[in-house]
Amino acid sequence: MSMLRIAVDAMGGDLAPGAIVEGAIAALNEHPELMLILLGKEDAVRAELKKYKYDESHVQVVHCSEVIGMAEPPVNAISKKKDSSIVRGLTMVRKGEADSFISAGSTGAILVGGQVIVGRLKGVDRPPLGALIPTEKGFSLLIDCGANMDARPEWLVQFAQMGTVYMKHAMKIADPTVGIVNVGAEEEKGNALVKETFPLLRACPEIHFIGSVEARDIPAGAADVIVTDAFSGNLIMKMYEGVAGTLLKVIKGTLKSSVPGMLGGALIKKPLKSALKDFDASRYGGAPLLGLKGLVVKAHGSSKAVEIKNAVAQCALFYEEDVNGKIKLLMEEQAEKQRKAKKAAKEADASKEQS
Amino acid sequence: MSMLRIAVDAMGGDLAPGAIVEGAIAALNEHPELMLILLGKEDAVRAELKKYKYDESHVQVVHCSEVIGMAEPPVNAISKKKDSSIVRGLTMVRKGEADSFISAGSTGAILVGGQVIVGRLKGVDRPPLGALIPTEKGFSLLIDCGANMDARPEWLVQFAQMGTVYMKHAMKIADPTVGIVNVGAEEEKGNALVKETFPLLRACPEIHFIGSVEARDIPAGAADVIVTDAFSGNLIMKMYEGVAGTLLKVIKGTLKSSVPGMLGGALIKKPLKSALKDFDASRYGGAPLLGLKGLVVKAHGSSKAVEIKNAVAQCALFYEEDVNGKIKLLMEEQAEKQRKAKKAAKEADASKEQS
Repeated sequence: MSMLRIAVDAMGGDLAPGAIVEGAIAALNEHPELMLILLGKEDAVRAELKKYKYDESHVQVVHCSEVIGMAEPPVNAISKKKDSSIVRGLTMVRKGEADSFISAGSTGAILVGGQVIVGRLKGVDRPPLGALIPTEKGFSLLIDCGANMDARPEWLVQFAQMGTVYMKHAMKIADPTVGIVNVGAEEEKGNALVKETFPLLRACPEIHFIGSVEARDIPAGAADVIVTDAFSGNLIMKMYEGVAGTLLKVIKGTLKSSVPGMLGGALIKKPLKSALKDFDASRYGGAPLLGLKGLVVKAHGSSKAVEIKNAVAQCALFYEEDVNGKIKLLMEEQAEKQRKAKKAAKEADASKEQS
Repeated sequence: MSMLRIAVDAMGGDLAPGAIVEGAIAALNEHPELMLILLGKEDAVRAELKKYKYDESHVQVVHCSEVIGMAEPPVNAISKKKDSSIVRGLTMVRKGEADSFISAGSTGAILVGGQVIVGRLKGVDRPPLGALIPTEKGFSLLIDCGANMDARPEWLVQFAQMGTVYMKHAMKIADPTVGIVNVGAEEEKGNALVKETFPLLRACPEIHFIGSVEARDIPAGAADVIVTDAFSGNLIMKMYEGVAGTLLKVIKGTLKSSVPGMLGGALIKKPLKSALKDFDASRYGGAPLLGLKGLVVKAHGSSKAVEIKNAVAQCALFYEEDVNGKIKLLMEEQAEKQRKAKKAAKEADASKEQS
């Protein structure tokens, strides 16, 4: 295998370029076989690079004069800002000049650019964003958590198929279970999308479908692959953050209001912190946008160095295991199956008309 | 005002009839002006009643020979089991023999029965289930959290209007703010439903609309009335439960694994418990099904006595403040407005054709 080239958007995210460059260099120092491509304002990037020791022959800086802001309309930004780090990074992936692109910048621009610039794999209807979320058992892949706000049943089936490949090969889970987010365990429950998707998932031989998963059971680790539309996926991700944050505030406030609470609070501070670290959604790095002709990873907007480091490591594993090659094969098989089924249906119709 | 008659389903919920009868009697002892109507198997209900002291002239037991199970298909159950506590209770509300009905039984049966037996107020398209959820600031009304899985924009507008009346009069919030659940703060974000609903809410003079609310900000208390479809509402409710439960398990596990953690854990046990009590969704009683010709309240399936007691108290306040009368008036005004707007549009069309 030739050297893996990972392009990193040095300008994206709340803590860019400092935390981005720091994390990328930390990953390089752990995986010295990588080639790192940092995209952004060259002066700013080089100023950050000066702070670290690393193998200079494995770092390339690509100057980009433009930056896409978080609030810019994505389609407009992608078509106008040709010299932004996001457009340049995605273009490198499309041209085969980089194997993957990581950005903590505008989600909208990355989603639109991923499809428009990198392009979809054959047979893929809509690339979903999959995020690893923490559970009592470890983690689950929540897919889609950001790309397709209004989804169709057949898209969700593809999310389940691609998510299964990802968990099996990039995350080494032998037989990943798949559940669909629902409001109850029974098949007849749910909204129209879930009701239509449920039988398709059950009939899908490429996945290990275990049925409906209630939101309440997601943090406990109800399934390895949690399939849903991006609107619901976003709600789930954000509720993790919101409930945990508020609960900790409530606990802190109460502990401060009594002497035993204050004493106990001081004693548990350290163990509590380590517990919460385990339950931190960001430690798994970024969210891969699956189903593209190359790997595009969206890192959290508030990513610190460690998250960028993890995202780079994730990209390396993704390539070692040829996850995209496996997704490509599966999706091509599916497209072929559908083509044959359609042809057979057409022929059946034709013979019916003749008789 | 005549005596308020509250019908309670003694057979509904995981802890029925024990916890239900206990809670209802506790409410009666606090509000001795109520008339309590307990519906269920008479023997079982009377056996529970024997345990308590109360004013017997204020308790009526209505024997019902049937019980609707949690897993029964709702429409079927409502049409077949005429002598169940749910059908009998709802029928009493329709006939004016009871002012409200509380049940911790099958949500589906209560939702279907509420519409079919009690009936909608004039002008109400779809009655939503509204639940009070705990926040850092107190509580918010999450509406719809269970009734309409696939909603339309104009229904969400009615949820916002009815929710505003409820929070203003039943919960005494002077100028309730209204937010719509969304995946970002900007108006152009969201799924099709949110995008269509947003301008309608902004143009609605009866509510204090503050725009999009991200799921992350709900536990912090982002708005008094949180409008959404029932699928998303259910996700939000269940994520409260799931994240809090898992987080506490993770914290407990970590505290047990170190000596300072164990010591600290022992000290904080009591204050922690009281903090979590404040953050317990059930303490506000049940979820009202708004927009019906009488008050129907769904209590949580796992309701304990205290929750039933709170639900009964909630019904009392609802009637004291004539919340349903105010909702009725508002919805009739809205229907009249729409009728006039349609008529004007028709006349405009007609005069256009003539000229």
